[in-house]
Amino acid sequence: MPKRVDHAQRRREIADALLRAARTAGLHATGVREVAAEAGVSVRLVQYYFDTKATLLLGGLHRVGELIAERMSEHTAALPATASSRDRVEAVLAALLPADQLTKDLYAVHAQYAALALTDPSLATQPYGDGASNLQTEITRTIREAQGAGEVDPRRDPELAALALVALTTGLAAGVIAGHNNLSVARAALREQLGCMFTTGEARPSLAQVSP
Amino acid sequence: MPKRVDHAQRRREIADALLRAARTAGLHATGVREVAAEAGVSVRLVQYYFDTKATLLLGGLHRVGELIAERMSEHTAALPATASSRDRVEAVLAALLPADQLTKDLYAVHAQYAALALTDPSLATQPYGDGASNLQTEITRTIREAQGAGEVDPRRDPELAALALVALTTGLAAGVIAGHNNLSVARAALREQLGCMFTTGEARPSLAQVSP
Repeated sequence: MPKRVDHAQRRREIADALLRAARTAGLHATGVREVAAEAGVSVRLVQYYFDTKATLLLGGLHRVGELIAERMSEHTAALPATASSRDRVEAVLAALLPADQLTKDLYAVHAQYAALALTDPSLATQPYGDGASNLQTEITRTIREAQGAGEVDPRRDPELAALALVALTTGLAAGVIAGHNNLSVARAALREQLGCMFTTGEARPSLAQVSP
Repeated sequence: MPKRVDHAQRRREIADALLRAARTAGLHATGVREVAAEAGVSVRLVQYYFDTKATLLLGGLHRVGELIAERMSEHTAALPATASSRDRVEAVLAALLPADQLTKDLYAVHAQYAALALTDPSLATQPYGDGASNLQTEITRTIREAQGAGEVDPRRDPELAALALVALTTGLAAGVIAGHNNLSVARAALREQLGCMFTTGEARPSLAQVSP
């Protein structure tokens, strides 16, 4: 009887090999051959799961999304049951900041995807923003709850505020990756904006406290 | 007597050719040969001004910075003399949002640089964030003035607030470029955050007003 193959697991392994290869050589230089070598499988097997370069890249991007979602779940699961709305928003957004090599690598690959999508129409049309959109929905709901509890100005549009917070975090993460800011500064800037939105919580952070 | 060559102008022309070539083929596929063809000059002339691929890319990035700075000056010059601190901050940040094809192209090239810098150490060490840093200094100064005039909570750290606003704008611009948001939503999100920071100015925007 032939061994039963876990196709989802195989796809993940190949996508992980793509991410590893892309981190060092750059995504533009990573094709089916490089991924097969990195995964230790045949070119034919890679092609069985991802029949074009575009589907391979999208497979890798999907995997990046999965890994980022796992990271966010870990951060929110670590919160105490008594965590405030503000704590929950901060935890989920802070999980997006590049705090360790894995998150840095994920951003690097994501940045390379975004750059390739700019000149490759087959990538540009794909909804690679699903993760960001789910995240925005969750933050919108939390802000709305906080408005109900009198913790956020009821005149603020929760959807727009959530969109701004996600964009802020993306921009801060890009700054850390590019080496313009360090992680403590990015975290302080995030807290600064949360301090502006939420009437509850800690005193306002200052840059002098976090600069090296 | 040989014709006097305006070297700065020549460098700009070659950098502009690099930007045009990169917009269509992608920066990773744009080298000295492609730039020479696009500029209508010899490979040797391109190499005279930019002796390696890295210096060529950096020349293009420098040019992107110049064009973005010009764009910001136009936006602030268009403000009336009576413009408030908030108006000035909004004008300079709104100039960074991709409102037209030129700005979109500039972001596209910038994103491709950032992606290449991730795997090319010769690019990664360059201070390509100078423009962002000058911008932050200017916004910090304006926020400090606004605090003096009672328009911004004096407990806010002006440097951190400026850093957050620039990161927000960068994140919003990336969302527009990637097609996740449209420009009106990005502008509304920017106004939303300014509305949170400044006690003066317009009522809070809502997403319902700007969504298509």
